[in-house]
Amino acid sequence: MSVTVVGSIAYDRVKTPFGERERMLGGAATHFALAASFFDEVRVVGPVGEDFTDMEVLATRGSNVDDVERVAGGETFFWHGEYGWDLNSRETLDTRLGVFESFDPKLSEGSRQAEILFLANIQPDVQRAVREQSQAGFVAMDSMNLWIEIARDSLVATIAGVDCVILNDAELRQLTEKPNLVSAAREVLAMGPSVVVAKQGEYGAALITAEEFFSLPAYPLETVVDPTGAGDTFAGGFVGWLARNPGDYRAAMAYGTALASFNVEEFGTERVLRLTREEIEDRVQQLGAMTRLALTV
Amino acid sequence: MSVTVVGSIAYDRVKTPFGERERMLGGAATHFALAASFFDEVRVVGPVGEDFTDMEVLATRGSNVDDVERVAGGETFFWHGEYGWDLNSRETLDTRLGVFESFDPKLSEGSRQAEILFLANIQPDVQRAVREQSQAGFVAMDSMNLWIEIARDSLVATIAGVDCVILNDAELRQLTEKPNLVSAAREVLAMGPSVVVAKQGEYGAALITAEEFFSLPAYPLETVVDPTGAGDTFAGGFVGWLARNPGDYRAAMAYGTALASFNVEEFGTERVLRLTREEIEDRVQQLGAMTRLALTV
Repeated sequence: MSVTVVGSIAYDRVKTPFGERERMLGGAATHFALAASFFDEVRVVGPVGEDFTDMEVLATRGSNVDDVERVAGGETFFWHGEYGWDLNSRETLDTRLGVFESFDPKLSEGSRQAEILFLANIQPDVQRAVREQSQAGFVAMDSMNLWIEIARDSLVATIAGVDCVILNDAELRQLTEKPNLVSAAREVLAMGPSVVVAKQGEYGAALITAEEFFSLPAYPLETVVDPTGAGDTFAGGFVGWLARNPGDYRAAMAYGTALASFNVEEFGTERVLRLTREEIEDRVQQLGAMTRLALTV
Repeated sequence: MSVTVVGSIAYDRVKTPFGERERMLGGAATHFALAASFFDEVRVVGPVGEDFTDMEVLATRGSNVDDVERVAGGETFFWHGEYGWDLNSRETLDTRLGVFESFDPKLSEGSRQAEILFLANIQPDVQRAVREQSQAGFVAMDSMNLWIEIARDSLVATIAGVDCVILNDAELRQLTEKPNLVSAAREVLAMGPSVVVAKQGEYGAALITAEEFFSLPAYPLETVVDPTGAGDTFAGGFVGWLARNPGDYRAAMAYGTALASFNVEEFGTERVLRLTREEIEDRVQQLGAMTRLALTV
């Protein structure tokens, strides 16, 4: 199988209570690809500017970057943000869309034919245009509060065409106007998808289908350095595992969770870049141990 | 074994998005006793006023109310609060301490001899005075942000004398000034206790000891009617199970979680009053199923 991801490739300027980086590789497609590439072939689709110098990082673990479009005279998407003391809140200080402003994705034959498609957080019209080009049998997507606020109808139309929605729990509540997570997830399932994943930050994630509810805590860390990209890294681990193990949602949640836990231990892509498969397996097993509820009936 | 609980017995006036009650039985000791009494003999210690008319409810499932002190001319502790749309925030509109203002607990011989003691949320000096009268081999306690703010030294002294601290995760952070849950819990362990339970509201609860981290989600509910007393009901299920099954922390977390889930389905004590042991067992088994992570190695 192979996985196509469409989304942002960015440079991030980030300050957290533990330090700062003036300009580091980021973006949803980047974090997703670095995680998913542990499990399957990844094809990255997204635009970069003339200033982009990290193509070989994107190609880590064999990811295909043929559909990364370098726009002459353009600037790579840039995000500048700062996190509060508990890392649960962040402030966006600057966003420069750059080449993303006129992004009109054209998937190559190889990217169209990938069996799995992940639509990272971009304008929902663009997500739908990508979805229509793809022949994937399983499509997952992310989104954000901005699109719920300014493009809700388009977002709902996009959701109707995918199999799996991965959103923060606050976004699920905002989208459905249901304060209760179970009710919110059921409403999203009624829009079309068969799987909803609610990302809950430091509390972990929950997976809801028509038949089941599954919940997994975040991997407990004493030090979180930079949460940037955690959600996309989770999605990369989750979707990447599913590409190799269709329908194995619970293990996919564990791989996504393990990968996200490494991502936040250092700035940007630093930790996941030098991560090994053995380190991932070790944390997945630990997650199994720390959630095991041995009940005597 | 038997369990002594010392804490408030109250009348609550509560408004939530789903309705309101002008005057319903509440209080930490009440909710704790109604939950713990499913598992072991409970002895309730706390003051009530002349207006108190619910002694037989306190005595549900055989709880001993000999140490419930009726204060002549006094008014029962009264709390009036209102919850916001998502039930995660609440505003206290009125608190009348009544007989609680001059509460000076004197444990009878039977309450002193109970093997397990739960110090519900009261002034930490009072908690310590109770702890000193008790011969319990296992002592657990709750507290709240107010005492962290105005009586921190006394609270830390109380914590030093107990085996298990059960606090909201926000309170653990506030107490230790550590934004990270694992770090905060380790700091509380260093104060003396061997077990820390972090209550995480709708996200569930985590248990931290020197050797292990265990996390359990809340039981997923589509409708939460009134969260009042959920934390004390959790504590009652948790401590009650431990009284019968010393050291069986993970199952205790599941029983606490299951009981709390019933508590919030209706106002005040309404649901737990008519709850059956079979209903509890069913939810505990469901919690086992919805957290089971079957990993192929």
